[in-house]
Formats: sequence, C-alpha cells, structure tokens
Amino acid sequence: MRCEVIAVGTELLLGQIVDTNSSWIGEQLALAGIDTHYQTKVGDNTDRIAASIELALSRSDAIIMCGGLGPTQDDITRDVIAAVMGVELVRDDMIAERIRAMFETRGRKMPQNNLRQADVPEGVSTIAQMPGTAPGLVCPVGDQVIYAVPGVPSEMRTMMKGTIIPDLQARSGETAVIGSRVLRTWGHSESGLAEMLGPRIAELDEGGHATLAFLASGAEGLKVRVTAKAEDDAALLAILDAEEILLRDVLGDLVFGLDDDTMESVTLQLLADKDMTLGVFEQATGGYLSSRLAGQAASDTVFLGSLIAGNPALADQLIGGGPADPEEAADLYAEAARSQLGADVGLAVGAATPGDRGGLNVAVAWVMGDRGKSWSLSLPGDLDRMRQFSGITLLNDLRLHLT
Amino acid sequence: MRCEVIAVGTELLLGQIVDTNSSWIGEQLALAGIDTHYQTKVGDNTDRIAASIELALSRSDAIIMCGGLGPTQDDITRDVIAAVMGVELVRDDMIAERIRAMFETRGRKMPQNNLRQADVPEGVSTIAQMPGTAPGLVCPVGDQVIYAVPGVPSEMRTMMKGTIIPDLQARSGETAVIGSRVLRTWGHSESGLAEMLGPRIAELDEGGHATLAFLASGAEGLKVRVTAKAEDDAALLAILDAEEILLRDVLGDLVFGLDDDTMESVTLQLLADKDMTLGVFEQATGGYLSSRLAGQAASDTVFLGSLIAGNPALADQLIGGGPADPEEAADLYAEAARSQLGADVGLAVGAATPGDRGGLNVAVAWVMGDRGKSWSLSLPGDLDRMRQFSGITLLNDLRLHLT
Repeated sequence: MRCEVIAVGTELLLGQIVDTNSSWIGEQLALAGIDTHYQTKVGDNTDRIAASIELALSRSDAIIMCGGLGPTQDDITRDVIAAVMGVELVRDDMIAERIRAMFETRGRKMPQNNLRQADVPEGVSTIAQMPGTAPGLVCPVGDQVIYAVPGVPSEMRTMMKGTIIPDLQARSGETAVIGSRVLRTWGHSESGLAEMLGPRIAELDEGGHATLAFLASGAEGLKVRVTAKAEDDAALLAILDAEEILLRDVLGDLVFGLDDDTMESVTLQLLADKDMTLGVFEQATGGYLSSRLAGQAASDTVFLGSLIAGNPALADQLIGGGPADPEEAADLYAEAARSQLGADVGLAVGAATPGDRGGLNVAVAWVMGDRGKSWSLSLPGDLDRMRQFSGITLLNDLRLHLT
Repeated sequence: MRCEVIAVGTELLLGQIVDTNSSWIGEQLALAGIDTHYQTKVGDNTDRIAASIELALSRSDAIIMCGGLGPTQDDITRDVIAAVMGVELVRDDMIAERIRAMFETRGRKMPQNNLRQADVPEGVSTIAQMPGTAPGLVCPVGDQVIYAVPGVPSEMRTMMKGTIIPDLQARSGETAVIGSRVLRTWGHSESGLAEMLGPRIAELDEGGHATLAFLASGAEGLKVRVTAKAEDDAALLAILDAEEILLRDVLGDLVFGLDDDTMESVTLQLLADKDMTLGVFEQATGGYLSSRLAGQAASDTVFLGSLIAGNPALADQLIGGGPADPEEAADLYAEAARSQLGADVGLAVGAATPGDRGGLNVAVAWVMGDRGKSWSLSLPGDLDRMRQFSGITLLNDLRLHLT
C-alpha cells in the first residue's frame, strides 16, 4: 500500500508556514506500515493541484490532501477533487447544519461563505470526526482513494487517527507492526559510525528484519535509528532488542542513551545515582548549557545552578585573577562553580577564541573529587553549533568518567 | 523564471525531520521575485529521485535539490544528477584536498568514504561557499539548471545567499527588485494587530505597492512584514520607508525593532547608550534568557553575567531567606543579581508555579536606580514557549521603561 501526501497552500511555497503537517502524516503512515514515496507542496491553483493529483494517482494507491478546505475563495481542494473525479459539488445538508450549529454554539454569526465548506464532490463520504467547520472527505477513485483533510493541525490529526489510518490499514490488509528504536551516540562522526556499522548494514541489506539510519542532531547527538517490521508487538520488540545488543557491541560507550534520553538527562541521572550535585560556569555558551540542564527530570536535586559570565572581567574576578592559559582558566572556572555553588561536581565552558579557518576554540573543564580534566575544543564558528557541540562534548566526557 | 525545490531524504518522508529547508528556500525565492509552483520531498531512491528531477525539468527552469550530498552510501544526489545529465562522476581533486584539510584542522581522522563527497558530475561547477565537507553544485542541463546543496541548514543557507539566488536572478534577467522589511512587535496578539492594521490592509488590497503579512515567532516577537516590488532599489526603499512610517504611526511602541533586531539586541543597545550594565537572575528559564543576551553585539560590555538557580534552595540562599510571595521574591532576585554582579540594572525570572488550564505562572522583575517592577505572567505550560514568552515580556517592559 503506497500513500502520498499533497499539501495545498501558496503560503507553504512562500515559506510563510513550515509544512509540519506532512512530516507528521509521514510519521503516522510509517508507523502504520504504509509506504510514502513522495510528498508534494502545491499552491492554491486549480491546474497545478489537478496535475499533482493525477500524478499521484499514477504512482500511488492513496492520496492524503492537506489544506484548501477553508471557507474562502482560494480554498479550492474540494472543487479540484470533484473535477478530477468528473462529478459535481453538492451541498451536504447535514454538514451545513453542523456548521450553522457550530457558529451558534460559539455565539457568532456565520458568514455566508462558510456554507461553501458543506459543498462536497458527489459520491464521496465525509469523515465522522469534525472538530472544526471543515469536513474531511473520503473520495473513491476506482479502487484508489483520495482523502482530504483541513490544514489546521489539530483537526487534521483527529481525522488521521480516527478515520484515515484505520481505513488505509483495512484497505491494505496489512497486519504487521512497525516500530523503531534510537540509539543516541556522541564521539564519532556520521561517516565514522557508518564505517563501524558497515558490515552490519551490509548484512541487513542482504535480507534482515531491520534497517539502520543515521541522523546528526546537534546537541541531541548523532542518532542511530533501528526500524523493524514484525508480525506482532512481541516479535517487533524481540527484533529491536536483538539489534540493540548487536549495535551496542560495536559502538560501545559511544552510545549514551536510547530514544528520548538526552546527554543532559543521562548525565544528571548518573549524578543522581551517586547522590552528587552539579554546579556550572559558562562563558562562550552564555547559559545555553544551563538551559538544557534545567527542566530535566533530575535537575531539581542535582543541578544546583550556574554562574554565567557575559563580560570577561566577571570571569576573571571569579577566579581572582587576570588572563590565564585558556585551559588553566577553564579548570579554575570549574573549581569556582563547584565551590561557590556548593556542588560536588563543577563544569566549565570558558571563553571562545578564534581558531583555524573561521572556527572557534573553546576550553572546557570538569572537576569532581580530586580529579579533573580541562582541554580545548576546535568547533565551527557558527554560534549555535559552537554552543551545542561544546555542551554535549563536555557532558559526554563527564559521563564517561562517571561510568 | 520558475524554480522548484526537491528535498531528498527518506528521513523527511518518515517525519523524522521536518523539512524547514524547503520553506526557507521558498521564502528566499519569493523575495528574489522567482516563482515556485511545486516543492517535492522524495526518499533516498535512485529511480524516484531521477523521476522527480525529470518531472521538475519538464515544468520549471531551475531546480534546487537539497540533501543527499553526505558521505554515506544512501547519499545519492550526486549520482542521480550525473545519470540524468548522462555523464560520469569524476573526482574533484581540489575539493578532495579541502575535505582532507578540514578533517586535519579538527584533528580528526578522515574516514575514507568522505572522499565520495569530492566526486561530482562531469561538467558541473562547484559552489564557492563550502562551510562543511559537502560541496554545492551548479549543474547545467541545456538552458536549465540544477543546483544541489547539502541538507545542513547553515551550509545550505550560505550557498543559497552566496551563489544560487544571485545566479537565478542573473539567469532570469528580472530587473524589478523585490524587498521586504520586518517590523518586530511585542505586546499584542496577531488578530489584535490585524484589527489595528485592517484599514491599511484594505487600502493595499485596493491596489497598493506593498503587501503585509503577520508571523508569530516566539521569542523573536510578532513580525509584521512589508513586501514590495519596484523598478529599482531607490524606488523600493521609498515604498518601504513610507509604509514603515504609516505602520509605526498605528502600532506606536509595540514596534521594538526592524528586520534582524531582537528584543535582546535592542534592549542591550538602549542600555549601552546610557552606559549601563545588566545582571540577570534566572530560575524558570534556566539560562535561556542569558543565552539569548550573550552573543549580541553589545553584550560584552553591557551584559555582565547571570546567576542561574537550578535548585530552589540556591535561589532562597541568594536572597537570604525562605519562601516569599513569588513577586516579592522576583524583586529580591533582581536586586541580588544587580548587587552581586555589580550591575546598574537587575533582571529576574522567578520560579514557575502551576497556573490555570495547564498553564504556568512566572514572576518576573527588573530594578534600575531606585525604580523597579515585579509582576506575574500567565504563560502556556509548554516549557519552550514559557521560556520564550517570559524572557521577551520582561525585556520589553524594561525597554519601555528605558525609552
């Protein structure tokens, strides 16, 4: 069963709205075991919407059209579907009544053009879930089907879950379940991981039950996602478990967590397990690392707080002195964060200094008991990436020391 | 000149990544006066990428392909473009050298497969900007053109601005200039702004030289974008200037800045103009506000630093006492930040407490000279939005006091 997505709306092409709907729909289809080979964005234009539908019907079994079901003149998805089906639009009196009632409930006068939303192509059925004034449509085209849902994310999601996914699964006769597990890693490049896992990828390509994908995700680390398809939940879990063991065997302590784990949550949990507290100093990262540490499950008890130096003089003052070697300074900052905040462990990100080829050098440090480490990182010059990479690299080193 | 966008990557279809690149590209094309009728997402599959390119060539003058230029086996954009062009891939030695040097600079061993990125279709040129290891490509196909850029947003954007947009404009022979100006606002809802500007929007609809659009952007404020098309730069500037005056007249001090101004940059500049320094305390925002203040132009001299309390006990300790009324506590935090950091102005974001309908209440405060203000905000329960809204609201109030 192949289903593609057509998102309708000139505002999507102009970048005024990011098309998060198609991404969400794609994810739901994948989890339901339905293939998606293409997703298209098209503007509010009759010919081009029609061309997109014809093309999709030539290569897929089903289409989900998202958007263009509103009450205004540029909402033409209904009209184009009717034209492609070769039928007329007819007023659905029950839908018209629901729209009228909806306005009444909200104590608002219904603009007359809202009744356009009750005009549906002849012979289609409307989707039972109707959280707004736009009905969703199920439009049979021979043994294929076009679904139409509004672009309002909450309305679209309700219809997808309530009607479209079950309908697609019934049509496909698919009973298999699909699921995935993400191994979160840090310390190696994407190509490095691909090289390490090359033999396993080759084996899986030969006919395994799972596939692997890599995803570089900044401060979220480099993700290795295992996706598998199985007869039932138990079989799926068995495949994912077995694959996780194989991958951990190759990747070792590059793996810092699974699925929704973050470097922050994992490190804080390791500290919590040892009844230890954390104090942080930040200069180059300006509070970025702290904002990621705060709001984690274990942060109230473990993460005591931070000292942020916006101005270099404040940083100097903290360690009672002037310019030191960057790595030495980072070490002193970590000590200062630990002692001034009364914590067991101190972390520090020092100042950023110009590095090679437009990059930045950032000195980082941790101290814990009578041990500690400070070193320099060469990072991209882009502010966001510098902040992300220095934070995750520092935490990762502490994590490795804690385990 | 019509240009369409093809985003390549199975992870996009599976919804593992939201395709923000296409939206950004669409916006840039619109601003450059280049039409986009379609945007397509396609997986890492040779036949389907090739079909997408062929289709796009049949209906557009140019294609921007985004993604699939990485070093791994599933990065096949280069290969498919070569196949469509009917040429071979050849190793570009200069690119290979740049990739090697890039790994050397970062002190990392280059995996052999990274050199795949130096293989480019015969007869194409590489894009001068190359912030990462993936070169961008300009591939002539008769009098049409295919551009290929990496999916890493920062790399893609650098290439778009540096090469692709200018090249498209040169090819299109379009001499009209399109430009826009963004008025950044805070303090009113999107529908409120639309109501205030209703009469002006109606006038422009009747046949003005400009259009208005609204864009809610979290900590970036609510943007009002004026877009206009004119014969030349001088005429464009005149239209934008005139429109800005009209809009400012209606919106008054809701407008905090223009274009790339942020609430942080504007507030820091106001403080710099008065030779004043800033110290910050954060609890609910956990360092988020500081990380936005740091890294601004004026931040080295104005933003001295912050105290971040991860643990409530640390916050209590700071003000030398136990639980106080949240607004009173926020006031004391602001005082403490000011005195302990030796600043002229103190800002504070206190703890978040449960509010109505799943939202959060956050007390905020500023102190400056012998004046100050502390009050409570009712914010959405979503952590990110709570952080964004509390930071921008607090700074906005300080801004209004400073002007």
